[in-house]
Amino acid sequence: MEELIRAVVNDIPEYIPGRSVKGAIKLSSNENPFGPSPKALTAIAKEAKTLQTYPDQKANLLRQALAKKHKLLPENIICGNGLDDILQILAATYLNAGEEVVISKNTFSVYALVSRIFGGSLVTVHIRDCKIDLDAMARMITEKTKLVFLTNPNNPTGTIFTAAEFDAFIQKVPEKVLVVVDEAYAEFVESKNLPNSLNYVKEGRNVIVLRTFSKYYGLAGLRIGYAIAREEIIAPMFKVKMPFNVNRLAQVGAIAALKDSAFLNKTYKNNLEGKRYLYKEFDRLGLEYMKTEANFIFINIRQSADELCQKLVGFGVSVRSLASFGLPEAIRVSIGTKGQNKKLITALKKAA
Amino acid sequence: MEELIRAVVNDIPEYIPGRSVKGAIKLSSNENPFGPSPKALTAIAKEAKTLQTYPDQKANLLRQALAKKHKLLPENIICGNGLDDILQILAATYLNAGEEVVISKNTFSVYALVSRIFGGSLVTVHIRDCKIDLDAMARMITEKTKLVFLTNPNNPTGTIFTAAEFDAFIQKVPEKVLVVVDEAYAEFVESKNLPNSLNYVKEGRNVIVLRTFSKYYGLAGLRIGYAIAREEIIAPMFKVKMPFNVNRLAQVGAIAALKDSAFLNKTYKNNLEGKRYLYKEFDRLGLEYMKTEANFIFINIRQSADELCQKLVGFGVSVRSLASFGLPEAIRVSIGTKGQNKKLITALKKAA
Repeated sequence: MEELIRAVVNDIPEYIPGRSVKGAIKLSSNENPFGPSPKALTAIAKEAKTLQTYPDQKANLLRQALAKKHKLLPENIICGNGLDDILQILAATYLNAGEEVVISKNTFSVYALVSRIFGGSLVTVHIRDCKIDLDAMARMITEKTKLVFLTNPNNPTGTIFTAAEFDAFIQKVPEKVLVVVDEAYAEFVESKNLPNSLNYVKEGRNVIVLRTFSKYYGLAGLRIGYAIAREEIIAPMFKVKMPFNVNRLAQVGAIAALKDSAFLNKTYKNNLEGKRYLYKEFDRLGLEYMKTEANFIFINIRQSADELCQKLVGFGVSVRSLASFGLPEAIRVSIGTKGQNKKLITALKKAA
Repeated sequence: MEELIRAVVNDIPEYIPGRSVKGAIKLSSNENPFGPSPKALTAIAKEAKTLQTYPDQKANLLRQALAKKHKLLPENIICGNGLDDILQILAATYLNAGEEVVISKNTFSVYALVSRIFGGSLVTVHIRDCKIDLDAMARMITEKTKLVFLTNPNNPTGTIFTAAEFDAFIQKVPEKVLVVVDEAYAEFVESKNLPNSLNYVKEGRNVIVLRTFSKYYGLAGLRIGYAIAREEIIAPMFKVKMPFNVNRLAQVGAIAALKDSAFLNKTYKNNLEGKRYLYKEFDRLGLEYMKTEANFIFINIRQSADELCQKLVGFGVSVRSLASFGLPEAIRVSIGTKGQNKKLITALKKAA
């Protein structure tokens, strides 16, 4: 049997998801602590009655809504079954076997997964003070480089690179390299220095911006993400994607969630307040954490993360060990509701 | 820009879906005319409240339910975002660039799509009297062949190959070739001669059986299909699939639909009665059609299918032109409810 399997499959490690443990608060997957957008739920309940029919192949209504939001055209947007699907479509469209992919170490694993599936050659760059090292990444670009994956804010450290830093980086990137900026957590950013990545799209650069409904909009279970780029980059991706990749409920749920300003404002405000509270408590506990621009906080715990996480589950809270990110002594905790954050602190105290 | 795109993308034709026209009955995509399974809808409504959380990565509960149904183990099953996703995972796991894929001409286009994405070399075999030509397909197998895609019942002709025919075919297939049997329409089969493809799985053959919730179970809009094969074949596919490929609602909806015997029996009976009625009316109209084992009927109309379909839309019925299947003078009509079938006949009379 084994000789039938593609060689690249051997290099693929198992994906380790954030743990969901019955009876424990889940602060391991950066989900929205208020649940899904209520407006999305209303739209989903209505649409469910027609679930016998196939979805719109191109998610046209959703792409129109997103185009309006981002002041672009629907032709600049493609939707996927979560960003995982978008990443796969990107690699399928652009990554030839043997071409190089520059990624940061200790990051979201699906960049490496899709690159491996298409035979890409991974070039990994260490993070520096918990930040993506854009200078080092630029230096790793060669004639063979096709894709660079950046995450802003970065997962799992919560840091951002600034507009000035990104601008300096982009100047060094040759035209024939596609720069993917995964902004899955952009809606939570507090800093005024986040690059306006869409401006690069509008200027005609080879920049591809990724956004998702899994975090801020509370729809992780429904699977919906999208890419924004200039039309010439997006168009061939439509040829490669599976015909009905985005389910009907995701399409209507996402449109409704975009308009759910009460829910979104509550989510943003809670996240701000939550991080202030957690900073204060972490300081009291003497924890070494990173200030975050996302809805999670990175903590360097200087002990076995897997063991601590196991203990915390015993105290009713599930957080993410970063061992599977290559950081065996760090954890990532999602910012929850007030009550959840308090329980996290109580559990951390007990586990200390 | 163009030089950045993978060469294989150029060979991919646009996917032409069954048309959905406002105000027209949709008999173009072989959807369940009774809507989604009501039990699935109840399960979906309940599950929607937790849509902020990621789905179970391996769809464990659904795989357990399917294993029970098919008298196999969960390890024999992998679920996907529709069968399209399963086909993509299959190719990603097993198809090396340059290896050959044997498919039937004039069939479901996603076999070719996923093969092209992975650089497979397509070997196409003509159908014979509207049936898949298993003998010819076996003759096309070479040392380079990795995958053979069969569809039973066949789409778009509705014919089956029999147990005896499949058995003779399998004897000719070398061990190192994976035989994929797409049984998307198997639940509608009336004949007693359908091969029991799962027996080949149980015997340890390299046979991969595909099933879907999009047709019989009425959940096309939710995207859920699965593959059944021996564990050694399935296990590496889990490494290659995107981590959260099956949404939460699909997982619970499918489990509930499996148990919805009232809905399923009604669907089966309606399809039988519908085809008898349509045969009789097609005979009266002098139409050249194929007896079907699925929920659709293939008609050789000996005129432009695109033009006829356009006319039929004008009379309130959307059916599938098979021009995009390479059959410009044939159509495929889904079997609908009694009322829908009558309207189809009325529209056909008007269009004649």
